[in-house]
Amino acid sequence: MSNPIRVAILGATGAVGTELLELLQSRNFPLAELKLLASPRSAGRTLSFQGEELLVEPVSEKSFENIDVVLASAGGSTSKAWAAKAVESGAAVIDNSSAFRMNPEVPLVIPEVNPDAAAMHQGIIANPNCTTILMAVAVWPLHQVQPVQRIVAATYQSASGAGMRAMEELKTQAQAILHGETPITESFPYPLAFNLFPHNTPLNEQGYCEEEMKMVNETRKIFNVPQLRVSATCVRVPVLRAHSEAINLEFAQPMSVATAREVLANAPGVRLVEDWQANYFPMPIDASGRDEVLVGRIRQDLSHPCGLELWLCGDQIRKGAALNAVQIAELLVARNLLRPATTTMAH
Amino acid sequence: MSNPIRVAILGATGAVGTELLELLQSRNFPLAELKLLASPRSAGRTLSFQGEELLVEPVSEKSFENIDVVLASAGGSTSKAWAAKAVESGAAVIDNSSAFRMNPEVPLVIPEVNPDAAAMHQGIIANPNCTTILMAVAVWPLHQVQPVQRIVAATYQSASGAGMRAMEELKTQAQAILHGETPITESFPYPLAFNLFPHNTPLNEQGYCEEEMKMVNETRKIFNVPQLRVSATCVRVPVLRAHSEAINLEFAQPMSVATAREVLANAPGVRLVEDWQANYFPMPIDASGRDEVLVGRIRQDLSHPCGLELWLCGDQIRKGAALNAVQIAELLVARNLLRPATTTMAH
Repeated sequence: MSNPIRVAILGATGAVGTELLELLQSRNFPLAELKLLASPRSAGRTLSFQGEELLVEPVSEKSFENIDVVLASAGGSTSKAWAAKAVESGAAVIDNSSAFRMNPEVPLVIPEVNPDAAAMHQGIIANPNCTTILMAVAVWPLHQVQPVQRIVAATYQSASGAGMRAMEELKTQAQAILHGETPITESFPYPLAFNLFPHNTPLNEQGYCEEEMKMVNETRKIFNVPQLRVSATCVRVPVLRAHSEAINLEFAQPMSVATAREVLANAPGVRLVEDWQANYFPMPIDASGRDEVLVGRIRQDLSHPCGLELWLCGDQIRKGAALNAVQIAELLVARNLLRPATTTMAH
Repeated sequence: MSNPIRVAILGATGAVGTELLELLQSRNFPLAELKLLASPRSAGRTLSFQGEELLVEPVSEKSFENIDVVLASAGGSTSKAWAAKAVESGAAVIDNSSAFRMNPEVPLVIPEVNPDAAAMHQGIIANPNCTTILMAVAVWPLHQVQPVQRIVAATYQSASGAGMRAMEELKTQAQAILHGETPITESFPYPLAFNLFPHNTPLNEQGYCEEEMKMVNETRKIFNVPQLRVSATCVRVPVLRAHSEAINLEFAQPMSVATAREVLANAPGVRLVEDWQANYFPMPIDASGRDEVLVGRIRQDLSHPCGLELWLCGDQIRKGAALNAVQIAELLVARNLLRPATTTMAH
């Protein structure tokens, strides 16, 4: 067994931070110490961990001394402000924001997909976008059997992707509408309860939103296929937790449904959920709180001889964020990769 | 102006029947008489129409005497039981069920798409599936500029597609969940509030549900392209009314976004809804109660040089059902097509 690890969670009070705490407990992560950090605004609260109440400290210059791993989930600007300092203090930073994901010197890692990429880290390892993780976990095993030529995805993304306040807002909006009142919108630009809308991240010149471009660019980086053909339509739906995705795949040669099903039934991080008699397939309420990506409705694409259609649901906070980060930490520990591949940060 | 028409609504008390009544009023349909019919179970109620209370009569052998047009929206078995009798009585039946849609002798009509097909009717004209209508209204104008080679659709279908009780069930479920209670499921096999699931119509051997096969087969028939390549993933989402669809189109040659936008901005039955600055695109709450299919987010498919992505929302009860049926009736009146193309039913 490896030596116990000193861990800091940056952004401990958020939806992902809460889940990180739960996972470090339930997975028996070899902890020597756990430090909870947050912005000064969120600091001062206590959170329970293994029967103890831990104080959430405001992040500062000294927060990262004698820390081995920082699990950062406090947003891009916080990560940009503190990651380099944490690395200078000798910590490995597993960052859940999008700040470093496309930096060519930062590995973007899903342990079931590209664990070896972690070895090249210079202090920071990026946790991919949630929607990308869920898709990649399901598509990668098929890609090993036969390279995927093209992916067309349509997503059904829950409120949890926008954080705890957004989940509360969805419930408050639903309550208002049921009482004939006008729903209040704060986290989202439009009412989400009993409604849906294209993902409201900024749009690029081609009309794709940031969320869609993450699915395109991050998948290319994780799969190490820079020209992989990917298109996506990302949509926010009035679901509390767990994202769903309809995925159309094209291969160079036909892949039988039987092959795809067998591959996915044995793939790490995937649970095949297909009861054709009962018309039962992955649903967000069944994916919520689970580690695996639920995959089902695998079928031959009627419109393309080398196409497959599949459907998946995954817990966006868990495998889409916190679990993947903890798995990266476990990978660093198991492979003795806590220290950077070289001693200086590359530029 | 044409002579006033004697109309019967079969299934007057349902979600589509209610909308038919509203549309006959608001569109000033040239009515000579309006008869409301329903199953014996639903008959006996009165519904208000143009300030009068009309009695809903139980459907019987004599219901169709002296009726010119029957607007049928009482489900497939009711249509199968009564359509032939209505035709024998001399009425044209515009049927909203799936009972006759794929019958080669029954025209399947969207007035904006294939109005000429109506001329061949033998008494029955089928109203297409709601999801198919919305997609076809948006794709057909582009298909006129350059034939579509392939369609891959993912749908976001509201509770209204399963009727009034399903809409109420969604609200009741949401209320229960907000109060920490277990939601009751009757219309749907699984809870829909704050959840979603693949469309629960029966599955064929290839794993496609009936709703998906309607999109495939009905689009081929309406477009008169028997080999059109179509694949679909149909999903029920916790939205009250109006369906949404993410549609990926492939053409033989590239079609520019500018061309597609111009074509759709001028297409009948379509309203282009794209505010790129405000990140505002079609939403179900904006499509509800509207006649047009709202189309937006038209963009070059990043994964295919001849591909386009687009997003649409349309009122499933209105253009997806009742409005299309009334438009067919208006078409029959305008083109003097109330009588069948031949005097005997073909077999």
